[in-house]
Amino acid sequence: MYNIIYSQGGICLSDGFFADGINAGLKPADAKDMAFIYSDSECEVASVFTTNKMTAAHIKHFRQMGDFKTNFILINSKNANAMTGKAGIEDINEILSTCKSVKNPIMSSTGVIGERLPKEKIINGIKLFDYSKRDSSSAAKAIMTTDTFSKECAFKVKLDDGSSFNIGAIAKGAGMINPAMATMLCFITTDADVSKSDMQEALDEATKTTFNAISVDGDTSTNDTVLLLANKKSGAYEKEAFAEALRKVMHFLALEMVRDGEGATKLVTYNVTGAKDDAEAEIAAKALSDSLLVKTALFGEDPNWGRIASTIGASGVESNEESLKISFDSHCVYDKGNLYFDEEMEKKCAIVMQHKKFTISCDLGIDNGSFKAYGCDLGHEYVKINADYRT
Amino acid sequence: MYNIIYSQGGICLSDGFFADGINAGLKPADAKDMAFIYSDSECEVASVFTTNKMTAAHIKHFRQMGDFKTNFILINSKNANAMTGKAGIEDINEILSTCKSVKNPIMSSTGVIGERLPKEKIINGIKLFDYSKRDSSSAAKAIMTTDTFSKECAFKVKLDDGSSFNIGAIAKGAGMINPAMATMLCFITTDADVSKSDMQEALDEATKTTFNAISVDGDTSTNDTVLLLANKKSGAYEKEAFAEALRKVMHFLALEMVRDGEGATKLVTYNVTGAKDDAEAEIAAKALSDSLLVKTALFGEDPNWGRIASTIGASGVESNEESLKISFDSHCVYDKGNLYFDEEMEKKCAIVMQHKKFTISCDLGIDNGSFKAYGCDLGHEYVKINADYRT
Repeated sequence: MYNIIYSQGGICLSDGFFADGINAGLKPADAKDMAFIYSDSECEVASVFTTNKMTAAHIKHFRQMGDFKTNFILINSKNANAMTGKAGIEDINEILSTCKSVKNPIMSSTGVIGERLPKEKIINGIKLFDYSKRDSSSAAKAIMTTDTFSKECAFKVKLDDGSSFNIGAIAKGAGMINPAMATMLCFITTDADVSKSDMQEALDEATKTTFNAISVDGDTSTNDTVLLLANKKSGAYEKEAFAEALRKVMHFLALEMVRDGEGATKLVTYNVTGAKDDAEAEIAAKALSDSLLVKTALFGEDPNWGRIASTIGASGVESNEESLKISFDSHCVYDKGNLYFDEEMEKKCAIVMQHKKFTISCDLGIDNGSFKAYGCDLGHEYVKINADYRT
Repeated sequence: MYNIIYSQGGICLSDGFFADGINAGLKPADAKDMAFIYSDSECEVASVFTTNKMTAAHIKHFRQMGDFKTNFILINSKNANAMTGKAGIEDINEILSTCKSVKNPIMSSTGVIGERLPKEKIINGIKLFDYSKRDSSSAAKAIMTTDTFSKECAFKVKLDDGSSFNIGAIAKGAGMINPAMATMLCFITTDADVSKSDMQEALDEATKTTFNAISVDGDTSTNDTVLLLANKKSGAYEKEAFAEALRKVMHFLALEMVRDGEGATKLVTYNVTGAKDDAEAEIAAKALSDSLLVKTALFGEDPNWGRIASTIGASGVESNEESLKISFDSHCVYDKGNLYFDEEMEKKCAIVMQHKKFTISCDLGIDNGSFKAYGCDLGHEYVKINADYRT
């Protein structure tokens, strides 16, 4: 048994980790745009990257490094260093060569695609870093793009033998969030005494039900990156406890991203059950969280359950109107051919939809497959934000 | 050889076809909501329906009829008769049994999902029909839902031997328009002396590059229906001429639907070439026409080519930044790792994007696969229309 306790401190809760965010002139002077994460001892690294084939330069650079330990991550916002070819990778090498007294430094970028990094600004920014700072919140702010709030969390894990370890993370992401990752960066630190293989296994597993279960607009970016660093300083570890704590960190941040979905006003859980198998439940749940017609109905607080049925039907999974059941929170509007959607029910459902958080449940009535996806509404703010992102 | 001549008359250009639209009280009194198409001799029928598994009652009803000839189609808007189960099919049978002096009448519906048809209103509406009317435009108006304009076209086809036949169509569709059909209805009439097998073959083939190549919001409805009726009255036919004329009819109406995409201000052609094969080109082209980030950039007239590259990369087709080329009309912004997107180029591309029609070309540089998809921008009007569709 173990106890997982929500804690303050973000990525600096873990022993031996330092972080800060600064302004290096990529954004206006009052905004942070560069961050570092530093550990005073070297770390094992586990990673998950985008499936997009136009991979950003920092991901190519990471992959070229092969098997390595590191104690330093440099992060910039405002420029994605994507579609920049070999020059983009050379820029990273040149920038990282100026980071003193660190081992195998790595880099992550987020922002506009197709522009070379402002190398001079970044190299000058590195000189401003103070590696003794433990300001997780500043680092979280520095990696924001269209995010309206910064995202971090941390947990202390107490094991039965009295030992304990810590895990914390910062993340960014608000749009281009898709079932297959997102324009998202997430950096997780831990002082657990975890092996590299356990780290990667737990990270892959947790990704499925967290960052891969959320949708803002169905787009998958060139830069999606999750990095997990472990410096083992606590000497404590228990496999299940670690996997559960990691899942909690990632689940928390995934929901924060949806809550901050560009222009989003609602966080909706799509709970699909009764599918042929879990894979089909996942397809149906993600189809709902991705559907523009469902998203705009959410924004309008219109309990248009027909669009939900139609989206399930269009998703291609085994389904039929004779076995389908649809509910808004506890209100069932349609059950195996029976329509319960009268005026009174419409009012009840409309009230559910006025909430900031609610659940739309679809029981396909086929077999036992289930999956939960998380999505948000889509309103005028999304259009406003994305119609002119670059300027 | 043959000549295909754009003509007036819509579905009533074809000899022996009659049509009209009326108000039966489903919409406010000043709007038409019911239409008929009648032929004074019986017709072969070819059909294409939605791939959505929550099929509307009228499609189930049609399929239950097996192999048949007909001379009458009844169409209503405002109510989709979908998710209405067996009762929905019984409603159709009861309604159609009141249509006098017609053979194997069929029905099509479009509108809100999950409500029973207002049977009395529709049956009373049928009594108002005058089968001697040849008002294609009124029928086209009666089948509109969120359409802002009615859609019809017709062509006269002159063959080399001096004979000729006619083909015409009406259609509705403005949202929920997706690569895999759309919330669209399309009714095509011809007096060509075409066999049932040739009709179906030509219809399937034309669907691929027309109604299946357009996207407004990536949703596939429960009700998508294309019906082609041939009464053979002209006695004239030539296989290639017929297939080409049918393709022209459907291409014209498909582009009309995109042009009328809910809130759309631009009609964009996505011309993908150089893909591994045509199937991969189709996937990439449809990914572009479906991408919310691309659509909102179009609305903002922001030549954000990075989103185009990212969308290609996310689509899963074979692609890489070393062989990709992207152009806005004739302006190449990115070619095999070379960035041509300076301030001057940005201005040129922004001017292209101010046009109502333009082409975004992506040469993947892999092999010879190609496909053209058609899409529109997504702006505030789309959100407004769909946030509260039912009321």
